[in-house]
Amino acid sequence: MMAVGRVAIVGLGLIGSSVARAIDERLPHMVVTGHDASAAVREQARDLGLCTAIVDDPAIAVTDADLVILAVPVGRMAEAAEAIAPGLKADAIITDVGSSKAGVAEALARTLPNHVIIPAHPVAGTENSGPAAGFASLFDGRWCIVTPGADVPEDALAALTGFWQGLGAKVDVMDAAHHDMVLAVTSHLPHLIAYTIVGTASELEEVTESEVIKYSAGGFRDFTRIAASDPVMWRDVFLANRDAVLATLQRFNEDLTALQQAIRRGDGDKLEDWFTRTRAIRRSIIEQGQDDAAPDFGRKH
Amino acid sequence: MMAVGRVAIVGLGLIGSSVARAIDERLPHMVVTGHDASAAVREQARDLGLCTAIVDDPAIAVTDADLVILAVPVGRMAEAAEAIAPGLKADAIITDVGSSKAGVAEALARTLPNHVIIPAHPVAGTENSGPAAGFASLFDGRWCIVTPGADVPEDALAALTGFWQGLGAKVDVMDAAHHDMVLAVTSHLPHLIAYTIVGTASELEEVTESEVIKYSAGGFRDFTRIAASDPVMWRDVFLANRDAVLATLQRFNEDLTALQQAIRRGDGDKLEDWFTRTRAIRRSIIEQGQDDAAPDFGRKH
Repeated sequence: MMAVGRVAIVGLGLIGSSVARAIDERLPHMVVTGHDASAAVREQARDLGLCTAIVDDPAIAVTDADLVILAVPVGRMAEAAEAIAPGLKADAIITDVGSSKAGVAEALARTLPNHVIIPAHPVAGTENSGPAAGFASLFDGRWCIVTPGADVPEDALAALTGFWQGLGAKVDVMDAAHHDMVLAVTSHLPHLIAYTIVGTASELEEVTESEVIKYSAGGFRDFTRIAASDPVMWRDVFLANRDAVLATLQRFNEDLTALQQAIRRGDGDKLEDWFTRTRAIRRSIIEQGQDDAAPDFGRKH
Repeated sequence: MMAVGRVAIVGLGLIGSSVARAIDERLPHMVVTGHDASAAVREQARDLGLCTAIVDDPAIAVTDADLVILAVPVGRMAEAAEAIAPGLKADAIITDVGSSKAGVAEALARTLPNHVIIPAHPVAGTENSGPAAGFASLFDGRWCIVTPGADVPEDALAALTGFWQGLGAKVDVMDAAHHDMVLAVTSHLPHLIAYTIVGTASELEEVTESEVIKYSAGGFRDFTRIAASDPVMWRDVFLANRDAVLATLQRFNEDLTALQQAIRRGDGDKLEDWFTRTRAIRRSIIEQGQDDAAPDFGRKH
């Protein structure tokens, strides 16, 4: 297997800084250089003691790196790739952590045509942003989906897989287009719906924002968590994965219209059937270790 | 103030059994009789040691009670009220814990025309159901909304307010119709949306249910919690609060269509503006103690 001894992380937000922390804790033999396009974020990363070194120049940050991880919003991948291009080793593996994959794969292949590129997506995160929000156990037991093109050398894929497993993640290999459809359902549509309802609730005339906040424990507060996620990251995700998001949104709209009709017509059986079916899904998610079994996600009481 | 010495709880699910536990812990001088229409639930309640006594006959359960709490699905309030009517003291206060109030107020006033009725709604709960799911601290720091009619004696209202405060809740007084609009936004619409998206995700052809479960940490799993709530309770809520739910749903649909258009047109500014605005709401909810400040709701990592 290819040895990964030096890693460069470009972008030190929630995910990038969590990768840095996880390497520090679990793969401490690795040398890690970090870079962020923002001077303020680099300063914060230095104060937090992230990485072996924080480097101002992106091309210098990646010099000698065996593995380069782009952890920037998906709309900025091409720009980040251009910035590192002059410093890349010929046999460096370039990967990313973006939430959509087909567009990123295309942008990276175009910008770095002579490099090994393996797009990847660790399906993990929190609603918090920035270098201070990261933590070493973020990827523990979570899935990292890698979407290698057909021409990726096996040893490079094995090296990236081993890297993510080293950070505690489980790895799945998938076609980029299928990834984008799966994530449209499991992540992008939920975020869009959450952003929508939180916005709707805060702009009604009949109910004040202060009432929405006070009585949010009735269910609303569950939506506010993901609607507090990074706005730029999510803007880019929806623009990059437009077709899959719009396709799943159409299915959601059909189902919502059907339930709306059931309510209007007083069709209790249809509602009860639907609500009974959805219970089973949560049970499976808990059984597979993808959520907390305690009521209220384990919130304190 | 009217002294509440004996309480009867009719319906021993999540909320009823939590009330029993909270009284036991915080108002231990009170004598509590419990009843549930289901013999199996009564048996379970006895095994759990809930209440001073579990009584098979609803009319006998409420004999001598100063305060009777109906904790049944809102579609069964009238039936429960009829069942207790023969046993009620003339000056007993009748209240409930239902999630919609105008319909319940009307049903109880019709069934028990000669009694003091004060509809109430503790805005608290978890996704779990049944007598074993309850716990004493469920109402701690949560709001209980009471919706008294104009003819309710002040001392009865004070007694009910004192009771809920004794269980750890904060009490607000509100018009029943306004309650139903506020809860349509903060609770009913979120549940409807969550039920819809969980159903949609589990029925797509392009993405398997097993993929939805595996990659649910991307956001989807947040919706599954409230979509695991009691199906009968929620069927009744949507039927009882139909008009307010459909009105808020219409506003949600307008906003969703606007965001859908922004995605289709590639209008990143509109998306980023919207997503920035919704962040502030979560901050307020946390500041007001209505949710956990820890990332991921404080889930274990």
